[in-house]
This record gives sequence, C-alpha cells and structure tokens, in this order.
Amino acid sequence: MNRIVTLTTDFGLKDNFVGVVKGVILQKNPEAKIVDITHEISPQSILEAAFVINSAYSFFPSGTLHVVICDPGVGTRRRIIIVSTKKYLFLAPDNGVLSLVIKKEPPQKIINVSNHKFFLTPISSTFHGRDIFAPVAGYLSRGGKLTELGEVIANIKMLPLPQSEYKKNVIKTPVVYIDKFGNIITALSQKDWQEKVKKKNFQLHFEKKKLEISLKRAYADGEQGEIIALFGSSGFLELAINHGNAAQRLQVKTGTLLKIIPGS
Amino acid sequence: MNRIVTLTTDFGLKDNFVGVVKGVILQKNPEAKIVDITHEISPQSILEAAFVINSAYSFFPSGTLHVVICDPGVGTRRRIIIVSTKKYLFLAPDNGVLSLVIKKEPPQKIINVSNHKFFLTPISSTFHGRDIFAPVAGYLSRGGKLTELGEVIANIKMLPLPQSEYKKNVIKTPVVYIDKFGNIITALSQKDWQEKVKKKNFQLHFEKKKLEISLKRAYADGEQGEIIALFGSSGFLELAINHGNAAQRLQVKTGTLLKIIPGS
Amino acid sequence: MNRIVTLTTDFGLKDNFVGVVKGVILQKNPEAKIVDITHEISPQSILEAAFVINSAYSFFPSGTLHVVICDPGVGTRRRIIIVSTKKYLFLAPDNGVLSLVIKKEPPQKIINVSNHKFFLTPISSTFHGRDIFAPVAGYLSRGGKLTELGEVIANIKMLPLPQSEYKKNVIKTPVVYIDKFGNIITALSQKDWQEKVKKKNFQLHFEKKKLEISLKRAYADGEQGEIIALFGSSGFLELAINHGNAAQRLQVKTGTLLKIIPGS
Repeated sequence: MNRIVTLTTDFGLKDNFVGVVKGVILQKNPEAKIVDITHEISPQSILEAAFVINSAYSFFPSGTLHVVICDPGVGTRRRIIIVSTKKYLFLAPDNGVLSLVIKKEPPQKIINVSNHKFFLTPISSTFHGRDIFAPVAGYLSRGGKLTELGEVIANIKMLPLPQSEYKKNVIKTPVVYIDKFGNIITALSQKDWQEKVKKKNFQLHFEKKKLEISLKRAYADGEQGEIIALFGSSGFLELAINHGNAAQRLQVKTGTLLKIIPGS
Repeated sequence: MNRIVTLTTDFGLKDNFVGVVKGVILQKNPEAKIVDITHEISPQSILEAAFVINSAYSFFPSGTLHVVICDPGVGTRRRIIIVSTKKYLFLAPDNGVLSLVIKKEPPQKIINVSNHKFFLTPISSTFHGRDIFAPVAGYLSRGGKLTELGEVIANIKMLPLPQSEYKKNVIKTPVVYIDKFGNIITALSQKDWQEKVKKKNFQLHFEKKKLEISLKRAYADGEQGEIIALFGSSGFLELAINHGNAAQRLQVKTGTLLKIIPGS
Repeated sequence: MNRIVTLTTDFGLKDNFVGVVKGVILQKNPEAKIVDITHEISPQSILEAAFVINSAYSFFPSGTLHVVICDPGVGTRRRIIIVSTKKYLFLAPDNGVLSLVIKKEPPQKIINVSNHKFFLTPISSTFHGRDIFAPVAGYLSRGGKLTELGEVIANIKMLPLPQSEYKKNVIKTPVVYIDKFGNIITALSQKDWQEKVKKKNFQLHFEKKKLEISLKRAYADGEQGEIIALFGSSGFLELAINHGNAAQRLQVKTGTLLKIIPGS
C-alpha cells in the first residue's frame, strides 16, 4: 500500500517549510508520492483552506491522504485529527478546516492524534507541520494503522459557513473566494440557482454599485471587459471578466456581501 | 510505458488548479511522473507560453508528454490538439501556443482531441485543464494510443511570431521575454548575430535613450550596475545587469521594440 | 541506489529554469526523485541560501543529495564542488553557500567538479544549473562515483557568518532571516540563551525604538497584535506577532542589528 499524500498549507514557497515537511514524510516512507494542492492559503485563513480542499479532494484517486495544515493554534491544546471516509483520509488540525469536506464525505472514523511515538523529538511549539503532521503522514502513506496513532473520538470542530440568504426576490450571498485570475466565487450553488431562481440575468448590488449582469457559459462568452456571471468549475456562481480581473474592478474582497436581484 | 508529463500553464500556484489537474492525471495513471515547467505564464499570454515551452521542451527525456495549458478560449469551439514529433508529444489548445516548437520539431501526426469517452463528466466550460487535458494526459502517459483520442488533422494554428528586422546598419528587434532576474530577452538569435553582424558592441536605442553596450560572456563579466549584453541560455540576445534588474532600470516591457546599431 | 535530490535555488518559479533543471536530471536518471526545498532565495543572496539549506538538510533521509544553486559567479572561474558527509552529499558553487552546513557536518571528501564528460555541451555561461549541476546531480542520484567527477580538494570557501556579540548585559544580534509570515529570525541560539542569559523577558532596542518583550512558547501564546519572542523551529530567537507580521511592524530587514538587554 502506498497512498498518495496531498499537501494544502499556508506555508508559502519562499521558506523551506514545505521542503522540510516532504523530507520528513520521505524519511518515514521513501516511496511516498507527494502532490502539492497549494501552499498559498492566506496566512491562518481556516475558511479559505476549507474551501480550497473541498473543491480539490475528490479529484484524487481513492485512498489518497489529504493533509491540510492551516493551523493558527499550533503549539496550543487544539487537537490534530485524522478523519477517514469511504474513499479518503484527511489529516488536519481540529479547527474547522474540514467543515466543508465533512458535509460531503461522512466520517467513518475520527482519531485524535496523540501517540508521541510517531512524532519527531523534540517537538517544537511552532512547526507541527514538520514535527507531527509529516511523520504521521509518512506512516499513514505506507498503510499505517489509524488506531495506532491515537484514540477514536466522536466529533470534530465545525465552523459556521458562509451561507446565501433567500428572501422574496432578493438573494444575499457572501464572496467566498477570489482566484488568481480575479474571478469572484460566491456561496450560491448551481443546484440552488436551478431549483430556486432559474433566471438568465440579474441585478448585482453592493455598496453603491448597481450592475446588470447576464449568465454565460464560458469566460470567453463575455465581451472583452464585460462583467459576466457563470457557474464555475467548483459549482458556485462566479463573477468574472473576459481577459480581466473582476475582483480588482469591482473592489470586492472575501467576505463582501453581494445583493442579487434575479431578472428575466 | 510511462511517459514523463510536464505542465506549463497560467494557473498560478495560489489556487488548487494545478493540484487538481495532477489528481486527475494520477487517477488515470497512478504511476505518472509529473514535472512542473511553470504555472506562472502571464494570464492568457499565448506568446509567452510559446516562448517558455520552446526553450524548455528539448531538455526532457525522449518520450516526454508536454502539456501546455494557456487557453483563453476555454469553453469555446477552439480545438484541443496532440502533436507527436520524433521525440515528444505535445498536448495543448490549438491557439498557436505551439508555433515556436513546431518550427524545430516537425509534426509526425496531429490529432484533434474529440473523444468524450476520455473526458471527465460533466465537462465544465471553465476548467478544461481538469476535465479534458488531465484525463487525456493520464491516458497518454501510460502509453495510450493517440488515434483513440480523436481524428487526424493536417494543420495547427500558427501565430505571427516576433521577428527581428535587418536594414543596412540597423537592427530592430522586439523584447520577447523578461525573466525573474529582469534580464531582457530579444528575438535576435546568436546564429543570426554570428552570420549577419559579428560585432562586439553596439548602440542601443529606444524611446529617447541611447546606450553603448558591449557583449560579454557571463553576467558576472559586467561591472556592478553596468548594462551588458550576452547570448543567454536560450540562444537569444539578452540585456542584463550584473547584480541588478535590467528591465526595471530600462523600463522595458515584453513587446518593446529595440533599435540596435552594431558598433566595432 | 537512487538518492533523493533536493533543490534550493534563487531561480524563482516564473521562468522555466527549475523545470529545465529537472528535465536534465531525469535525462540522466529517469527514476530520480526530486524535491524542491525552495526556489525563492533572494536573487544572488548566498547568505540566505546558506541559512535555508542549513535549517532543512537534516530532515531528509540519509543518502540525500542536496543541490544548492545560488551562484552569482556563474560563468566565471569559481569552482563547483561536491561535499560528502557522513549522511549526505552537497553539490553547490564554491562561494560559501555551504558555510553553515559544514560546521555541523564535517566533510569526508570534497571534489572539484571538473570532468566535462558529465556536462551538457555546449556549456552556456549563464545557466550552469542546467548545463553542469543538473547532469552531475542526475549522475550522482543513481549512485555515480564522486571521484569520476573531478579531483579531491582540501578546502572550501567559507563566508564570515553573522554572529551575536555578548557584552556585560547587552547582546547585539543581527537579523538573519525573515520568513513569509514576517517572523524575524536572529543569530541568537537557544543553546546560548540557556547557557549565558537564562531570562524570561528582555528589552529590545533598535534605531529609536525600545520595546519590552517576553519569551513565549508558541505564536498563539501572544495576545493578538503583541510582539513576542520565542525560540522557533530552527533553534534561534525569533520575534513574532500572533496573527501579524513582525518584520513589517518593526520595519526590520535582514542584516538589521538588534540590541537586547535581558530583563528579569
């Protein structure tokens, strides 16, 4: 058995943090196959990490171990957990970073990682990625037994998640994520739109702006510079500009609340 | 058979796009060896991607599959193609991104990728990297047959490429690429210089600047802060500053036309 | 034999430099396992590269080949060396970049890499990463013999390293590194602090600022926004802000000299 190991962190690529984590995984399993999902989660942004792993995990082979390290509580008493689901393993701090995943992948077993035998010694209080997550990931990747790592627990911490609010003809939805092209991803799912809204265009309100927007299929369906909406690859309503940066143009940030008035 | 797969994209490393593409490749071929060339192509800059793959592809082992995803037309009717050459396979949108490669590597076969059997379902209209390129790359990487993927076609789209213009004693050459050190790469090849110019120094004109420049062999042959020229690792004339950033100093961008008057 | 190969460079991830280096390594050893430590060393900053490899190398499996390419003298007569130690191999320009490593890992053999048979031809004068380091690394990674690559030499170049200065009740220590979270790493080691200082808090002076700082164990032990100190994962005194960027707040850079007056 040799599970693929993915890494999703806020470590960035400037320092040697990611390399060191991989070194320790390879010490425990020289055959480990490690894939970066991203290391550019905004520092300590648990919600962003939750969104990023949620829209990525299911594209990996069955058996993959997903390691998510966005851990502002490093060195404190927050737990480190393993969640096993039908197809995957997740290793993460118990700070809510798996809140979105858990809704789609019911946990079969949750382990509180506590067996120091599997950790590096001494354990620093600032870099558990290296001292705990990496050796545990290395052990799991070569088929190590979950129950060796700690005791079974019943629950994990859940975060309040950004929700859309439907009232008569008005939908309020927060900006959940902005990708590197400046596409603005909201909390409004394609499924909800098809069930509750079913329109082809809408008015977008926020701050003092008011814009007429029509739903398209592809980025290139917009005129150059036109603000369009579409349901993107993660299944949520996105605002985008063909050959442009919508977030910069609209001055929108993660968390901004958008008001949508469905049209014709 | 297990081809190395390289990735050259404008996806950036902030989002989970690259990780997801790798996940899908590994679903189709768990043994795939994937190497990043770069994911920092300027968004939708086909010409830049053409330059970057052109100066990289030949350094990989025979049999390598090079996947280039710089695809402003994603979701429209532009084709996706496979080009097989004597030593390599290339998988890319048919938007001209292979224009430079093709000049050095004559195509033996060109396939219009059209067999939906090999794609993810449903296919999004915004992320063909995940839904088409990745599963096709996974299939090809384990020795999959080209002709299963679509029909043979005769031609691919070619872009007009930046050219140098030689007139009497004046050469006009555009800036083709600026690397992260600020070195300015032009369209003027070492071969052309040796055949047509054969000088050791020149005058550089652009906008209202006029500079005396001498050809060196290595960056460190320049005085600290001196603007020098050399034939860089890609075989084209570069302007550089030892321990400095030439593009910033000269305020030059990709596309800027430089006038060169060869000297002694 | 198949050594893991790590890469620590100032090449950045924008260009195709790193991809090309990997391509050449794989040409020489198609089974090579390559791990990035970082490619974001500040351009030509030998001291930074020395710090980064020093705090990373020991976390890799025994037998690993660490390649460090921060090489402002590329194309000049500076040597390229291999240092073999009890557990590792290091391949680097002989410019002092191994000064810190060498103090902890006594060299068993030093080779001046000079056998052109192992290099690409022609050798450019600007990209020895591709033309010399990569093919040599590929050869070494599959168990190639050191003495084939060049002659044994006795010494390597050492850099003057940043030191802390202890005078009565005042310690002067330079900022050695700033990580991507803005944590400020000094030259003051935990070992020295425990032997010579043994205090729980101190006054920090630099420029016209004077701050009372207390030692904590974890980042999260600080109040939100409080400047704290701790001994970080590399074993040196760090200044940090819980959920904040200490380097930005304090306007400190690599090289800034800090004055520390130990307190109670």
